[in-house]
Amino acid sequence: MIGRLNHVAIAVPDLEAGAAVYRAMLGAEVSAPQAQPKHGVTVVFVMLPNTKIELLEPLGEDSPIAAFLARNPAGGMHHVCYEVDDILAARDHLVAQGARVLGDGEPKIGAHDKPVLFLHPKDFCGTLVELEQV
Amino acid sequence: MIGRLNHVAIAVPDLEAGAAVYRAMLGAEVSAPQAQPKHGVTVVFVMLPNTKIELLEPLGEDSPIAAFLARNPAGGMHHVCYEVDDILAARDHLVAQGARVLGDGEPKIGAHDKPVLFLHPKDFCGTLVELEQV
Repeated sequence: MIGRLNHVAIAVPDLEAGAAVYRAMLGAEVSAPQAQPKHGVTVVFVMLPNTKIELLEPLGEDSPIAAFLARNPAGGMHHVCYEVDDILAARDHLVAQGARVLGDGEPKIGAHDKPVLFLHPKDFCGTLVELEQV
Repeated sequence: MIGRLNHVAIAVPDLEAGAAVYRAMLGAEVSAPQAQPKHGVTVVFVMLPNTKIELLEPLGEDSPIAAFLARNPAGGMHHVCYEVDDILAARDHLVAQGARVLGDGEPKIGAHDKPVLFLHPKDFCGTLVELEQV
Protein backbone atom coordinates (compact mmCIF):
# COMPACT_ATOMS: atom_id res chain seq x y z
CA MET A 1 0.00 0.00 0.00
CA ILE A 2 2.48 2.67 1.05
CA GLY A 3 4.83 3.90 -1.63
CA ARG A 4 7.66 6.40 -1.38
CA LEU A 5 8.73 8.16 1.77
CA ASN A 6 7.57 11.64 0.78
CA HIS A 7 9.31 13.40 3.66
CA VAL A 8 10.52 13.32 7.23
CA ALA A 9 9.26 16.31 9.20
CA ILE A 10 11.44 17.83 11.90
CA ALA A 11 9.95 20.46 14.19
CA VAL A 12 12.36 23.25 15.10
CA PRO A 13 12.08 26.25 17.43
CA ASP A 14 13.98 28.51 14.99
CA LEU A 15 13.61 27.89 11.28
CA GLU A 16 16.49 30.12 10.27
CA ALA A 17 18.85 28.29 12.62
CA GLY A 18 17.53 24.91 11.45
CA ALA A 19 17.98 25.87 7.80
CA ALA A 20 21.53 27.02 8.57
CA VAL A 21 22.33 23.63 10.12
CA TYR A 22 21.25 21.82 6.97
CA ARG A 23 22.73 24.35 4.55
CA ALA A 24 26.05 25.33 6.13
CA MET A 25 26.86 22.33 8.30
CA LEU A 26 25.38 19.49 6.27
CA GLY A 27 25.85 21.14 2.87
CA ALA A 28 22.33 20.47 1.59
CA GLU A 29 20.10 22.54 -0.67
CA VAL A 30 17.42 24.26 1.43
CA SER A 31 14.43 26.12 0.00
CA ALA A 32 13.26 29.57 1.02
CA PRO A 33 10.78 29.65 3.95
CA GLN A 34 7.11 29.24 3.06
CA ALA A 35 4.51 30.44 5.55
CA GLN A 36 1.50 28.14 5.64
CA PRO A 37 -0.94 29.97 7.92
CA LYS A 38 -3.72 27.44 7.31
CA HIS A 39 -1.46 24.71 8.66
CA GLY A 40 0.05 26.75 11.50
CA VAL A 41 3.63 26.29 10.34
CA THR A 42 6.39 27.92 8.35
CA VAL A 43 8.34 25.38 6.32
CA VAL A 44 11.64 24.95 4.53
CA PHE A 45 12.42 21.92 2.44
CA VAL A 46 15.81 20.22 2.54
CA MET A 47 16.15 18.70 -0.92
CA LEU A 48 17.91 15.33 -0.84
CA PRO A 49 18.41 13.22 -3.98
CA ASN A 50 15.75 10.69 -2.98
CA THR A 51 13.38 12.50 -0.61
CA LYS A 52 12.88 15.67 1.41
CA ILE A 53 13.33 16.76 4.99
CA GLU A 54 10.76 19.34 6.06
CA LEU A 55 11.75 21.69 8.84
CA LEU A 56 8.66 23.09 10.56
CA GLU A 57 8.49 26.18 12.75
CA PRO A 58 5.26 27.11 14.58
CA LEU A 59 3.21 29.91 13.01
CA GLY A 60 0.37 31.63 14.86
CA GLU A 61 -1.46 30.89 18.08
CA ASP A 62 -2.66 27.34 17.57
CA SER A 63 0.20 25.70 15.76
CA PRO A 64 -0.19 21.91 15.66
CA ILE A 65 3.49 21.56 16.55
CA ALA A 66 3.45 23.89 19.59
CA ALA A 67 2.84 21.10 22.12
CA PHE A 68 5.55 18.94 20.54
CA LEU A 69 8.07 21.78 20.85
CA ALA A 70 7.02 22.42 24.43
CA ARG A 71 8.01 18.80 25.14
CA ASN A 72 11.09 18.95 22.86
CA PRO A 73 12.45 22.50 23.10
CA ALA A 74 15.49 21.76 20.91
CA GLY A 75 13.22 20.32 18.21
CA GLY A 76 12.97 16.76 17.00
CA MET A 77 11.55 14.34 14.48
CA HIS A 78 7.83 15.01 14.31
CA HIS A 79 6.38 12.67 11.66
CA VAL A 80 7.04 10.63 8.54
CA CYS A 81 4.91 10.94 5.40
CA TYR A 82 4.28 7.98 3.13
CA GLU A 83 2.72 8.30 -0.31
CA VAL A 84 -0.39 6.32 -1.25
CA ASP A 85 -2.26 6.09 -4.54
CA ASP A 86 -5.76 6.11 -3.05
CA ILE A 87 -6.11 7.69 0.37
CA LEU A 88 -9.71 6.59 0.93
CA ALA A 89 -8.90 2.97 0.14
CA ALA A 90 -5.86 3.23 2.41
CA ARG A 91 -7.94 4.69 5.22
CA ASP A 92 -10.66 2.06 4.91
CA HIS A 93 -8.07 -0.72 4.96
CA LEU A 94 -6.39 0.73 8.05
CA VAL A 95 -9.63 1.30 9.93
CA ALA A 96 -10.73 -2.25 9.13
CA GLN A 97 -7.46 -3.44 10.70
CA GLY A 98 -8.20 -1.47 13.87
CA ALA A 99 -5.92 1.53 13.29
CA ARG A 100 -6.97 4.97 14.44
CA VAL A 101 -7.07 7.89 12.05
CA LEU A 102 -6.70 11.30 13.71
CA GLY A 103 -9.39 13.98 13.55
CA ASP A 104 -12.69 13.14 11.89
CA GLY A 105 -11.14 10.53 9.60
CA GLU A 106 -11.71 12.55 6.43
CA PRO A 107 -8.71 13.56 4.31
CA LYS A 108 -7.74 17.21 4.45
CA ILE A 109 -5.80 19.19 1.90
CA GLY A 110 -2.27 19.19 3.24
CA ALA A 111 0.68 21.49 2.98
CA HIS A 112 1.44 20.21 -0.56
CA ASP A 113 -2.15 20.82 -1.77
CA LYS A 114 -2.83 17.09 -1.78
CA PRO A 115 -5.19 15.00 0.38
CA VAL A 116 -3.60 13.84 3.61
CA LEU A 117 -4.50 11.92 6.75
CA PHE A 118 -2.62 11.46 10.01
CA LEU A 119 -2.53 8.11 11.81
CA HIS A 120 -2.34 7.61 15.57
CA PRO A 121 1.26 7.16 16.77
CA LYS A 122 0.27 4.45 19.25
CA ASP A 123 -0.83 2.22 16.37
CA PHE A 124 2.35 2.85 14.32
CA CYS A 125 5.40 2.09 16.47
CA GLY A 126 5.15 5.36 18.40
CA THR A 127 5.50 7.32 15.18
CA LEU A 128 3.09 9.92 13.86
CA VAL A 129 2.42 8.85 10.25
CA GLU A 130 1.03 11.10 7.53
CA LEU A 131 -0.39 9.53 4.39
CA GLU A 132 -0.43 11.71 1.29
CA GLN A 133 -2.27 10.84 -1.89
CA VAL A 134 -0.01 11.52 -4.88
CA MET B 1 27.76 17.26 1.49
CA ILE B 2 24.95 14.95 2.54
CA GLY B 3 23.45 12.81 -0.18
CA ARG B 4 20.56 10.38 -0.01
CA LEU B 5 18.51 9.64 3.06
CA ASN B 6 19.73 6.11 3.62
CA HIS B 7 17.11 5.26 6.25
CA VAL B 8 14.90 6.41 9.07
CA ALA B 9 15.36 4.26 12.17
CA ILE B 10 12.40 3.58 14.43
CA ALA B 11 13.01 1.89 17.78
CA VAL B 12 10.31 -0.58 18.76
CA PRO B 13 9.72 -2.66 21.89
CA ASP B 14 8.53 -5.68 19.85
CA LEU B 15 10.02 -6.25 16.43
CA GLU B 16 7.46 -8.83 15.35
CA ALA B 17 4.60 -6.48 16.18
CA GLY B 18 6.38 -3.58 14.45
CA ALA B 19 7.00 -5.66 11.33
CA ALA B 20 3.32 -6.68 11.33
CA VAL B 21 2.26 -3.02 11.42
CA TYR B 22 4.34 -2.26 8.33
CA ARG B 23 3.53 -5.50 6.52
CA ALA B 24 -0.16 -6.07 7.26
CA MET B 25 -1.44 -2.59 8.01
CA LEU B 26 0.71 -0.47 5.72
CA GLY B 27 1.21 -3.14 3.05
CA ALA B 28 4.98 -2.74 2.74
CA GLU B 29 7.68 -5.30 2.04
CA VAL B 30 9.50 -6.13 5.27
CA SER B 31 12.69 -8.20 5.47
CA ALA B 32 13.33 -11.09 7.83
CA PRO B 33 14.81 -10.11 11.24
CA GLN B 34 18.59 -9.81 11.39
CA ALA B 35 20.27 -10.04 14.79
CA GLN B 36 23.23 -7.67 15.04
CA PRO B 37 24.77 -8.55 18.41
CA LYS B 38 27.73 -6.23 17.89
CA HIS B 39 25.32 -3.32 17.57
CA GLY B 40 22.93 -4.44 20.30
CA VAL B 41 19.88 -4.54 18.06
CA THR B 42 17.78 -6.86 15.95
CA VAL B 43 16.65 -5.19 12.75
CA VAL B 44 14.06 -5.52 10.01
CA PHE B 45 14.09 -3.34 6.92
CA VAL B 46 10.93 -1.87 5.46
CA MET B 47 11.71 -1.55 1.77
CA LEU B 48 10.18 1.58 0.24
CA PRO B 49 10.75 2.56 -3.39
CA ASN B 50 13.11 5.41 -2.50
CA THR B 51 14.56 4.57 0.90
CA LYS B 52 14.29 2.21 3.89
CA ILE B 53 12.73 2.30 7.32
CA GLU B 54 14.71 0.33 9.87
CA LEU B 55 12.83 -1.07 12.82
CA LEU B 56 15.19 -1.69 15.73
CA GLU B 57 14.54 -3.91 18.74
CA PRO B 58 17.02 -4.06 21.65
CA LEU B 59 19.30 -7.10 21.73
CA GLY B 60 21.36 -8.02 24.78
CA GLU B 61 22.19 -6.19 27.99
CA ASP B 62 23.66 -2.93 26.78
CA SER B 63 21.57 -2.10 23.77
CA PRO B 64 22.16 1.48 22.58
CA ILE B 65 18.40 1.90 22.18
CA ALA B 66 17.42 0.68 25.67
CA ALA B 67 17.39 4.15 27.23
CA PHE B 68 15.38 5.55 24.33
CA LEU B 69 12.74 2.85 24.74
CA ALA B 70 12.64 3.43 28.50
CA ARG B 71 11.67 7.03 27.69
CA ASN B 72 9.41 6.01 24.77
CA PRO B 73 7.86 2.66 25.70
CA ALA B 74 5.65 2.51 22.59
CA GLY B 75 8.70 3.13 20.38
CA GLY B 76 9.49 6.13 18.24
CA MET B 77 11.69 7.70 15.61
CA HIS B 78 15.26 7.20 16.79
CA HIS B 79 17.55 8.63 14.10
CA VAL B 80 17.96 9.54 10.44
CA CYS B 81 20.91 8.36 8.36
CA TYR B 82 22.35 10.47 5.57
CA GLU B 83 24.85 9.17 3.04
CA VAL B 84 28.19 10.89 2.49
CA ASP B 85 30.97 10.17 0.02
CA ASP B 86 33.84 10.80 2.41
CA ILE B 87 33.08 10.40 6.10
CA LEU B 88 36.40 11.80 7.33
CA ALA B 89 36.04 14.94 5.22
CA ALA B 90 32.44 15.27 6.44
CA ARG B 91 33.54 14.87 10.06
CA ASP B 92 36.33 17.40 9.74
CA HIS B 93 33.98 19.92 8.14
CA LEU B 94 31.40 19.44 10.88
CA VAL B 95 33.89 19.65 13.72
CA ALA B 96 35.36 22.83 12.20
CA GLN B 97 31.83 24.29 12.26
CA GLY B 98 31.48 23.46 15.95
CA ALA B 99 29.34 20.33 15.70
CA ARG B 100 29.82 17.49 18.16
CA VAL B 101 30.50 13.96 16.97
CA LEU B 102 29.48 11.25 19.43
CA GLY B 103 31.95 8.80 20.93
CA ASP B 104 35.62 9.23 20.15
CA GLY B 105 34.96 10.89 16.82
CA GLU B 106 36.36 8.01 14.78
CA PRO B 107 34.09 6.23 12.29
CA LYS B 108 32.94 2.77 13.29
CA ILE B 109 31.76 -0.03 11.04
CA GLY B 110 28.00 0.24 11.18
CA ALA B 111 25.14 -2.18 10.79
CA HIS B 112 25.54 -2.13 6.99
CA ASP B 113 29.29 -2.90 7.16
CA LYS B 114 30.13 0.66 6.17
CA PRO B 115 31.85 3.44 8.14
CA VAL B 116 29.42 5.48 10.21
CA LEU B 117 29.44 8.34 12.69
CA PHE B 118 26.69 9.71 14.92
CA LEU B 119 26.22 13.45 15.46
CA HIS B 120 24.94 15.11 18.62
CA PRO B 121 21.18 15.74 18.48
CA LYS B 122 21.52 19.13 20.16
CA ASP B 123 23.53 20.39 17.19
CA PHE B 124 21.09 19.00 14.58
CA CYS B 125 17.57 20.22 15.35
CA GLY B 126 17.07 17.76 18.21
CA THR B 127 17.61 14.85 15.82
CA LEU B 128 20.17 12.09 16.19
CA VAL B 129 21.95 12.00 12.81
CA GLU B 130 23.97 9.08 11.49
CA LEU B 131 26.35 9.64 8.59
CA GLU B 132 27.19 6.60 6.50
CA GLN B 133 29.94 6.50 3.90
CA VAL B 134 28.65 4.81 0.76
